[in-house]
Amino acid sequence: MIYKEAREKINSDSVTNIKVIEKPPKLDNPVLVVGLPGVGNIGRVAVGYLISELKAKKFAELYSKWFFPFVVLHDKSTISLLKNELHYFKGKSGQRDLIFLVGDCQSLSPQGHYEVIEEVLDFIGKYGVKEIVTVGGLATGDLEPGKKVVGAVSSEKLMKKYAGQGIDFNAGDKVGYIVGAAGLMLGLGKERGMDGLCLLGQTSGFPIVTDPKAAESALDILVKIFRLKIDMSKLEKKVDEMEKFIKKVEGLQMKAVSELAKASKAPSSGEQLRYIG
Amino acid sequence: MIYKEAREKINSDSVTNIKVIEKPPKLDNPVLVVGLPGVGNIGRVAVGYLISELKAKKFAELYSKWFFPFVVLHDKSTISLLKNELHYFKGKSGQRDLIFLVGDCQSLSPQGHYEVIEEVLDFIGKYGVKEIVTVGGLATGDLEPGKKVVGAVSSEKLMKKYAGQGIDFNAGDKVGYIVGAAGLMLGLGKERGMDGLCLLGQTSGFPIVTDPKAAESALDILVKIFRLKIDMSKLEKKVDEMEKFIKKVEGLQMKAVSELAKASKAPSSGEQLRYIG
Amino acid sequence: MIYKEAREKINSDSVTNIKVIEKPPKLDNPVLVVGLPGVGNIGRVAVGYLISELKAKKFAELYSKWFFPFVVLHDKSTISLLKNELHYFKGKSGQRDLIFLVGDCQSLSPQGHYEVIEEVLDFIGKYGVKEIVTVGGLATGDLEPGKKVVGAVSSEKLMKKYAGQGIDFNAGDKVGYIVGAAGLMLGLGKERGMDGLCLLGQTSGFPIVTDPKAAESALDILVKIFRLKIDMSKLEKKVDEMEKFIKKVEGLQMKAVSELAKASKAPSSGEQLRYIG
Amino acid sequence: MIYKEAREKINSDSVTNIKVIEKPPKLDNPVLVVGLPGVGNIGRVAVGYLISELKAKKFAELYSKWFFPFVVLHDKSTISLLKNELHYFKGKSGQRDLIFLVGDCQSLSPQGHYEVIEEVLDFIGKYGVKEIVTVGGLATGDLEPGKKVVGAVSSEKLMKKYAGQGIDFNAGDKVGYIVGAAGLMLGLGKERGMDGLCLLGQTSGFPIVTDPKAAESALDILVKIFRLKIDMSKLEKKVDEMEKFIKKVEGLQMKAVSELAKASKAPSSGEQLRYIG
Repeated sequence: MIYKEAREKINSDSVTNIKVIEKPPKLDNPVLVVGLPGVGNIGRVAVGYLISELKAKKFAELYSKWFFPFVVLHDKSTISLLKNELHYFKGKSGQRDLIFLVGDCQSLSPQGHYEVIEEVLDFIGKYGVKEIVTVGGLATGDLEPGKKVVGAVSSEKLMKKYAGQGIDFNAGDKVGYIVGAAGLMLGLGKERGMDGLCLLGQTSGFPIVTDPKAAESALDILVKIFRLKIDMSKLEKKVDEMEKFIKKVEGLQMKAVSELAKASKAPSSGEQLRYIG
Repeated sequence: MIYKEAREKINSDSVTNIKVIEKPPKLDNPVLVVGLPGVGNIGRVAVGYLISELKAKKFAELYSKWFFPFVVLHDKSTISLLKNELHYFKGKSGQRDLIFLVGDCQSLSPQGHYEVIEEVLDFIGKYGVKEIVTVGGLATGDLEPGKKVVGAVSSEKLMKKYAGQGIDFNAGDKVGYIVGAAGLMLGLGKERGMDGLCLLGQTSGFPIVTDPKAAESALDILVKIFRLKIDMSKLEKKVDEMEKFIKKVEGLQMKAVSELAKASKAPSSGEQLRYIG
Repeated sequence: MIYKEAREKINSDSVTNIKVIEKPPKLDNPVLVVGLPGVGNIGRVAVGYLISELKAKKFAELYSKWFFPFVVLHDKSTISLLKNELHYFKGKSGQRDLIFLVGDCQSLSPQGHYEVIEEVLDFIGKYGVKEIVTVGGLATGDLEPGKKVVGAVSSEKLMKKYAGQGIDFNAGDKVGYIVGAAGLMLGLGKERGMDGLCLLGQTSGFPIVTDPKAAESALDILVKIFRLKIDMSKLEKKVDEMEKFIKKVEGLQMKAVSELAKASKAPSSGEQLRYIG
Repeated sequence: MIYKEAREKINSDSVTNIKVIEKPPKLDNPVLVVGLPGVGNIGRVAVGYLISELKAKKFAELYSKWFFPFVVLHDKSTISLLKNELHYFKGKSGQRDLIFLVGDCQSLSPQGHYEVIEEVLDFIGKYGVKEIVTVGGLATGDLEPGKKVVGAVSSEKLMKKYAGQGIDFNAGDKVGYIVGAAGLMLGLGKERGMDGLCLLGQTSGFPIVTDPKAAESALDILVKIFRLKIDMSKLEKKVDEMEKFIKKVEGLQMKAVSELAKASKAPSSGEQLRYIG
C-alpha cells in the first residue's frame, strides 16, 4: 500500500504537483503574499521572516519538473527536492488572513514559469484568494540604491487602497517590465479577477547577494499594509541563517549555466575524428 | 462565479489562448495584416500606425505560455501580460475589410512560433480570411539601406495582383529565408489555402532600433494596395510615443539572454566544493 | 470547404505531419535511403542526385513544428515551409524498389529528432520497409580527408550482405557516435526489426560547405549496392545548382544561433534601471 | 507481425520506455544501486565493475527521447541507441538482492531528468524496491582530492543503518546540492516512501576524465555495506576497457555543446543580406 499512497502524493504524469500537508482552517478573504528567490533575495527574505515571526503554518508543498534537476542539502546530510511552500496565517482582530508562498527556486524555463504559476493560482483560488501581493527586488545598478519600495499594480483600485503607506507608485518611470513570478503571478491572476500589487525593494543588484536592508524596507511596507506586529530585531540574525542556505541555491543556478559554458570550451580530447551525420 | 468566468477567459490547460473582447461585425473576405516586433520594428510601427489612423477596433487578445515570462508596465504603475492583439477595420467604398494582428512580442521558442501561428490561423479562418499580408524588416547591414520594399509571396497569383505598386519582387536574390511570424504565417497559411504576401522594408539592422523611415516605406505600400486614406504627418510623433514602449520590450529580450550570459560568468563565490552527481 | 480540406492536410494539433501527395504503386520490399543536410551535405547531395537521375517521384511531404520557425525562398519570390520529402523509385529487372527521404533540414531540438524519425518510421513501415540506408559525412578535420566511405550497421547481417563493395567497415575505430538522423534512424529502426546501414563519406569538415567529392564517393557505393545505372557526369553541375539553395538553409542554422549570441552582447541601451523580480 | 511486435517494444507515443528483456526471479526486498555517467564517472565505473564481478544479469533496457539524438558504436561497426540498463543480482546467504541501474548517459534537459527518473521509480517499485543507493562524484577542485566517500541521505534512518562503515556523513558542510540522477533519484524516491543513500567519491574534477581511484573508494563502501565478495584486482584493467567507450560518450556531450558554440561564431559566408521578419 505504501506505493499506492506515495503515488498519490506526487503523480508522475503531472508536471507540477501541490501536496496538501494539513487542511488549513477556514480562511476569510485571504491575501496571497509571494516571496521567491530573485535579485537580492528580497522577497524570499522578507516573506520568510514574516512566516517565522507570525508563526505561520505550512499547509502545502509544491514540486515541479520545471525546477532544476537538483536536490539540496538543508542540513549536514539530508537531501530534499527543490520545492515551494504555502503557509497560512489566521489574522487576529483587524488583521487579514494571509497565505504565504516561499521556496527554493523559480522555474527554469519560460513555459515552466507560466505553468507553475497557473497551478498556484488554481490552488489558492480554492481558498478564496482575490488579492495577491508579490515582493521582489529592483536592481538599480547603483552602489547606493536608496531604500525606496517601488510599487506596481495589476488593477488601479489597489493603488488607491494602498496609497499613503510609503509605496512609490512611479515604477513605470523606472522599469519597463517585471521578470518572473513577481510579475507573472499578478498578470495571470488578473485574468482570474484577482487584484495584484508588486512591491520592489531597491537594491544595487551586484554582486548577486542577499540584500537585508532592501528586504527590511519591503518588510516595513508589508507590516504596515497588513497591520502586523512583529519583532524586527531578529531580522539580521535570520538573514545570516538564511544566507547560508540561499547561497547554496543561488550558486546552483549559476553552476548549472557555468557547467554548460565550461563544457563548450573543453578540448575535444582523445578522438581524432569528429563526426556529424 | 468570478473564478469560473475568469477560468473560461484563459484556460490554464491551454498553452495559447485567444480571448474575444467583442464580436466584430460580419467581415467581407477580409485580409489579415500582420505587424509584430522584429528587426527595425517595421511591421509593428507600420501596422500600429494604420490601426490608430483607421480607428480600427480591438476585438480579441492572444496570450501564450510561449511568450517571455514577463509582465510589462504600459503606464506608470499598471502591469499587463505580454500579448498580441487583433483589430478589425470595416472598409469603406472600394476598400477591403482588414484584420490587423499586432503585439508586444513573438514566441520565445521555435515550437512556440509554429503553435501560436497555428492558433492565429485557426482563429482568423473563422472570419473568412483567405489572404494574409505580413510586414517585416530586411536588415541589409548597410548604413544607408535604401528605401525599397521587397516582396515575397506564398502563391504566385499575389505577385500578379500586386504588381506595379512599387514592390520589389526580387526578394529571392537578396534573402534565402524569412525568420519568425512574417514568413511562417504565410507558409502555414498556404497549407490552409490562404494566399500570402510578405513586405520587407529595407533597414540597416544596426543598432537594433526602430527605423521609422523603413516603416514609412512599408506603410506607403500598404496604403496603396488597400486604397486607404490616412494622414501620414503624425507618423514621426507616433513613432516617438511607440518607441518608449517598444524599447522596453526590445530591451526585455536582450536582458533575458544577457542575464543568462552574465550568470554563466559569475564567480562561484563561497563554496569550496563543486559537485555533480 | 477549402478550410476543412486544408486542415486535413496539416493538423495543427499534431507536431509532425506527413502529407501524402499521391499514392505510390505497390512497392516490393523497398529500402529507405536517407540523405538529409549535415556535415558536407554529403547525404543531401548524393541522394538528391539519385532522385533526379532515377526520375524518382515525390509521393509525400513531411512538416514539423520541430523544424526552424523559418520559411525559405526556393526561387526569387516564392515562400515555402521547411520540409522533408519522400520519393519512390520502382526498380527495373534486378533492381530493388527504393524510397528516398531528403529535405531542407533536420530537427532543431534533441526530442524533435526522436519524434520526427519515429513519424518517418511509422510511415515507411506501412510500405513494407525492412531495410534502411542512411548517408552522411565523417568530418576528419584533415584538409585532405581521403575518399573512403565508412560504414556502420545496426545488425551484423548487413555487414556481410554489403561486404566487398568498397565500404570500410572499421567505423568504430574512427568514430564513437553518429549524430542526428543518419544514426538515429537506424537505432530506432532496429527497435522495429528494420536492418540499417550508415554510409559516411570522409570530408574535411571545414569550412562548413558542401563537399561534392565526398558525395560522389558515397554515390558510387549507393550505385554499386543497388545496381543502379546513372549518368555521373552531371553531378558537378547539379551540386552547383543545389549549392545555392543549400547555402541558404545552412546559413539559416548559423544565423539563428548567432542572432542569439549577438543579442546577448548588446548594450542595454536607454534604461537606467534593470529589474528582476 | 514483425512491426506490431516491434511497436510494442518501443512505443513512439511514449517519451521514455523500459523494455523487459527477461523476467527476473522473485527478488526479496531488493536495493536499487545507481551508477550513471557523471563527474569522474565514479558511479558508472564502480557499479559497472560490480555488475561484471557479481555476474549480475541484465533484465531490462531504458530508452528515452530525453537522451541525446545520437547513436553509439559499441564495437567496430555496430550501432546502438543510447540507453540505460537494469541488472539484477540474487544475493547469497546474508547478502541482499540488488538491482543495478547503469547506462550510457543521463537526460539532456532538466524536465527530462525528472521524467526518466520517475519512469525508473515506477518500474523498480514493481519489484519491491524500498531502498536506493546512488553513486556519484564530488569534484573538489584539488589536484589531490583525498579518498573520502561522502554520504548524504533522504531519510535519517539510513545514516544510522550505515554508520561505522567509513562513510563521511558531513556532506552538508561541503556541498549545497547534488546535480542530476544521483540526487534526484533519492529526492523523488523519498516521495514514494523509498529510503535513499548517496555516496560521493572525492575527485579533482578536472580534467574531466574517469577517476578509477575515486571509483575504487566508492566500490569499497558498496562492497562493505552489501557484504559482497569481489575480486578488486581487475578494476584497473576494467577501467581501461570502459574508458575507451566512456570517452566516446563523454566527448559526445561536449561536442554537442561545442558544435553549437562553433556555429555561433562562424562567419555568415556568402549572403550579403541578413534578414529577420
